[in-house]
Formats: sequence, C-alpha cells, structure tokens
Amino acid sequence: MLIDGKHYRTIWEATNQAYVEIIDQTSLPHTFKTSRILTLDEMVSAIKQMQVRGAPLIGVAAAYGIALALREDASDSGIQSAVDKLAMSRPTAVNLSWALRRMQSLLMALDVSDRAEAAWQMAGEIAQEDIEQNRRIGEHGLAIFQQLYRQNEIHVLTHCNAGWLATVDYGTALAPVYMAYDAGIPIHVWVDETRPRNQGAFLTAWELRQHGIPHTVITDNAGGLMMQRGMVDIVLVGADRVSAKGDVCNKIGTYLKALAAHDNDVPFYAAVPSPTIDFSIQNGLEEIPIEERGGEEMTMMTGLSEDNIIHQFRVLPENTTVANPAFDVTPARLVTGIITEAGIFSPSQLRPNA
Amino acid sequence: MLIDGKHYRTIWEATNQAYVEIIDQTSLPHTFKTSRILTLDEMVSAIKQMQVRGAPLIGVAAAYGIALALREDASDSGIQSAVDKLAMSRPTAVNLSWALRRMQSLLMALDVSDRAEAAWQMAGEIAQEDIEQNRRIGEHGLAIFQQLYRQNEIHVLTHCNAGWLATVDYGTALAPVYMAYDAGIPIHVWVDETRPRNQGAFLTAWELRQHGIPHTVITDNAGGLMMQRGMVDIVLVGADRVSAKGDVCNKIGTYLKALAAHDNDVPFYAAVPSPTIDFSIQNGLEEIPIEERGGEEMTMMTGLSEDNIIHQFRVLPENTTVANPAFDVTPARLVTGIITEAGIFSPSQLRPNA
Repeated sequence: MLIDGKHYRTIWEATNQAYVEIIDQTSLPHTFKTSRILTLDEMVSAIKQMQVRGAPLIGVAAAYGIALALREDASDSGIQSAVDKLAMSRPTAVNLSWALRRMQSLLMALDVSDRAEAAWQMAGEIAQEDIEQNRRIGEHGLAIFQQLYRQNEIHVLTHCNAGWLATVDYGTALAPVYMAYDAGIPIHVWVDETRPRNQGAFLTAWELRQHGIPHTVITDNAGGLMMQRGMVDIVLVGADRVSAKGDVCNKIGTYLKALAAHDNDVPFYAAVPSPTIDFSIQNGLEEIPIEERGGEEMTMMTGLSEDNIIHQFRVLPENTTVANPAFDVTPARLVTGIITEAGIFSPSQLRPNA
Repeated sequence: MLIDGKHYRTIWEATNQAYVEIIDQTSLPHTFKTSRILTLDEMVSAIKQMQVRGAPLIGVAAAYGIALALREDASDSGIQSAVDKLAMSRPTAVNLSWALRRMQSLLMALDVSDRAEAAWQMAGEIAQEDIEQNRRIGEHGLAIFQQLYRQNEIHVLTHCNAGWLATVDYGTALAPVYMAYDAGIPIHVWVDETRPRNQGAFLTAWELRQHGIPHTVITDNAGGLMMQRGMVDIVLVGADRVSAKGDVCNKIGTYLKALAAHDNDVPFYAAVPSPTIDFSIQNGLEEIPIEERGGEEMTMMTGLSEDNIIHQFRVLPENTTVANPAFDVTPARLVTGIITEAGIFSPSQLRPNA
C-alpha cells in the first residue's frame, strides 16, 4: 500500500539477499522507519518485540528467518534449531507454525547445498501468496459492503490492526475496506484504541490516514455504546487463529465487541487467509494457547515529550500488579461469517481446503 | 479511609470555613496532594477537570460550591447563578442536580442573611449522609460476599473507580469489598484500567493498595477472557445514574462487562446511594445525556519521565480524529441487582423512597 504516495510492503528482501528489510512498527505513528534484519536472532527479536506483528506477517517473517538461518547452517539440525527458536517467539498465531512446518518439510527433502537458495525462494513465495490471499479476501469482502450499501456512509468497527501492516500487503480485515473505498462506497471506520499496545490507535489509524479513509479512534470501552446508538453497521476484525468450528481467537477485547454486536444485531465478521484456520483444533477457548505478555506493556507507554522526542514513560507505579493476556476467543455462535481467500463462510461451513 | 495509616475524606471544610479542601485526584497515583478551593469558579473547575469526580462526590462538591458562592452573593439570583454554573459542569451524574435542587429549595426558603451559614451546614449534612449511605451499602453488599464465600478467594471485577475516592468516604462498589476484606473474607479485585482517564489503574488500584487488598490491573479488553476462564465471581460497579426500571448508566465500557458477565453466568451488581436513582427516567439509553469529553483525554496521557517528573505526553499525533463519550448504559436485563443504602433490589423492584 501507499506511504506518502510511495508503494511499500511490510517486509522485503534486499536484491542480493544480504538482508531482509521490515517496516519497524514499534516506531509508528510518530516516526516511519525501516530496519534491516541480518540474522535469525534479529528476526526472532523483531517478532518478539513486535517490530513485525500480525498473524500473516509473522508467518512470512518466520519464513525469512529460516532463510537467514540457513546461510549459517543448512543442516537438518540447523533447520530444526531455527524452527524451534522461531516457533517460541509468539505462541498464539497459527500462521507462524504453519509457515515453519511448510519450510521445514520442503527444505528437509532437498540436498543441504540447495537449501539456502531454496529457502529464500520459498519465503518469497509465501509472501507472494499472502498478498494474493489478501487481495482475494478484499474482493470477497467487498461484496458484503456492496450489499450493506444503500445511500449512507457505512460505519465499520475494527479492533487492533488487521490492515496491511499485519500482512505483507492489503491486510485481512481492512482489505475489503480499502477495496470498498476505492470502489466509491462511502466508508467510515471506528478504530478501537486496542490497549495495551494501541495497535488500533497507532497502526490502523495511521494506515487509514495514508489512504485517506475517514476514521475515528475510540477507546476500547466505547464500541458498545456506538452499537447501542446504531452507529456501527459491521464489525470486521482479523484473527490469529480460527478453530475448525469457527471460534475466533483474536486480540484481547474482540470477544467483548462480538457480544455487543450480537446484542445489537450488528454483523460480526473475521477476515483471515486460510492458513489462519487450524483444523486440528475444535474448541478455541480450551485448546488455543493464549500468550501472556509482559506487564511493562501496561505500566509503560510510548509518547512524545514537549520537545517532540519519543520517550518511554511510566504510567503506573512500579509496584502495580498487572496481568496482560494478549488474546481472547470469540465463540462461533457470535460470528456471522469468516472471510477467506476462498469466499465467505458461516462458522459451520468451514472445511479443510475450502 | 486510610492513606499511609492516616484517615482522610475526599473533601472537607476548613474549621473556619475559609475554604474547602479536596484530594486532587488528577495527581494520583504518582503524587498525593490536596487543594484548597476558595471560590465557586474554582469548584466548577475542579469538577470539570475531574480533580473531584465520582457521582456521589460530585454531588457533595457541588453543595460546597453553593456554600462558597453564597459568601459573595446569597440573593435568589446569586443562588440561581451558582446552581446554573455547577449544573453545567458535568451532565451525566444525577447526584449533581439532586444536590443542587436540594440546596436551592432549602436555601430559597430562608432569609438572605441566614443562607450562607445554612449552606455550609447543609453541605456538611449531605457529605455526612453520603458517608452513612455508603457504610450501609457496604453492609448490604457484605451479605453478597458472605453468600459467595465457600473456601476460595472471591474474585471481583470492577470498572472505573467507585471506591472511596468517588464518594466522601467508603465508596459505593468498593464499600462491600472493604467490609468483606475487613471481615476476613479472602478477596482479589480485577481492576479495569478504564481508558481514557485510567481511573481504575490510577485510583482504584491506589485505594486498594492503601488498604492492602490484593488486586491486579487489567486492560479494559481483558475482562471478557477472565470471565470465560471462570476467574471472576462477581462484577461490581458504581453508577452515575440509574433509571426507574434499572438501566445502569456508568463509565463507558461497563455495558461490555455486563454483556460478558451475562454470557458467563457471572452476577452483575451496581452499588449506588439512592440519590443516584433517577425515577424521572425510564429508558436509560434514550433519556440519559451522555457526556462527550475532550479528545485530549485520548491523545495525551499523564506519566513519569525517566527523571521521575510528571509530564503530559502526546500518545497520538495531533491530526488524529477521536471521539470520547464518557458513559454508556447497561440495560436492566443484564443487571442482577442494585445495592443501595436501603438494601439489595432487582431492577424491577426499584421504588421511590425504597
């Protein structure tokens, strides 16, 4: 997508494969900067620190992490060691383990001497597939907006960032929003702040502003009132993992918005590339591991001081006890539909290879 | 309640009635300081800036605001002018207009020369009544905790601050928590951060820490997951206004917690002194005015810099569009009970003078 009119992806390889370059998402919205990732350990760190984040992008970043690792050691044990390090970097998103399994099984079948070159090619293919999947999610989702559109602006509520910054390009939940806007459908997005990392306020609002789409940042607390007032036409989110029966694991707080949508007859959709659906899991709430992240995400915050310099500042006293689970699970009964590159499915219609 | 072992109220008059003194709640949790309020305009400002906040405390502060105003002008028009200024300071809490009506009707019946002295006495009485009401709310609420208590720690979830800082003393929602804890019932409180003003993280956590009650601050997004996991035994909040049929208007986000409580069979109670119940209103969602507060509450944040100095930091770029409604309305169907100084009532049981 465009940044100040120039096309960017969130991750790309240097032409000579000397490094992988990423948009450093921890600097947004105050500063746009990119970082060069030269080693496996740097990629693990970039994932853990959420310089790259979003389930689809994490999968692609992990694939490139393998490519970087294989320059050092392309043996079976070298691959296994890289896979293990990357797999532990974030536990909830299934795309990560999906990309790693795919890389590992294909690379293991090759001669050791061919693996490094093949790994770059495969990582590039996974990135390209992600772009194509998201483009098609956008096309399928566009049909929902065309159905909703009468005369008035359509109000979308979204939680966290499932835009192009969460993928390689286009985004999942926001792909239909971009396509509908580009097709001339008037759209306005309520952007949940998304505590504690503020991905909505920091990333989604920034993305939408770059594209010129009208939007308003609200606290995570406000979406219920907006729905009670009839000011939300559709809730549209991404997901980090979807169970076989359609339970949607997504950023903490999504479940509360799904409850409010259900209570106010507002349709609730999750948009995901098919690798996000984990057919090995039935009951999302019982079977999906929920990442617990560090308390400093709640006690500290990034902001600008009066002299316009980015600081980490302390919002809660040091002795404050906090808990910081990063995801929750929206039961399938609250989900109107799952939008994938293959179409729009009710939770009960999900099938492997659909 | 106690601060470092010393008893405080949130508001009190100087012995010679030279001024009213308040705990400045905008400095917590980093600094404890009090402020002297010398004039009506200073009181209006203290209410608007939320140096004093919480529906019951706002009512008492407004009563003292009248007392301060009458030192300058105790005429009928002087009273009316003071009432008008105070009534506009915060629109949602009904306690404010209740206290003003009560002051006005009683003062108007007196000779002008007797009014100033009477106003101080009446404000003092309203403060004393608030303390007594909250003490009785605590006693009635204690019975709920005694019923819930088997052997294990009871986990309470609360939103915003309805502790003693929101009242003159004891608190509304937290009064039963303090009493249950003091009675030896093991208790742990999940404290919603409560964006955008962070009254949970800043005030409720501070209060509970002063009293030694175990608690954990969570984001507003996390309560749903906690309930899904069976980690919440009761949701207990205050309210800024309750309609005749039991709709509960409280801090924005309360409705989302009530939905989650209902979805997980967790009891949901609001604790309020009876002046918070507005029998002139049936349908809370349609009839209660919802205050829209300034966007800087979302774009700016208070925190400590590395040198431990309190600053206002900018967390969102200046051109960010935000909306900041301060309250929402939880429909009576989601409310298990209303705890008042007169007892515990289901929403359908509410009666004037109950």
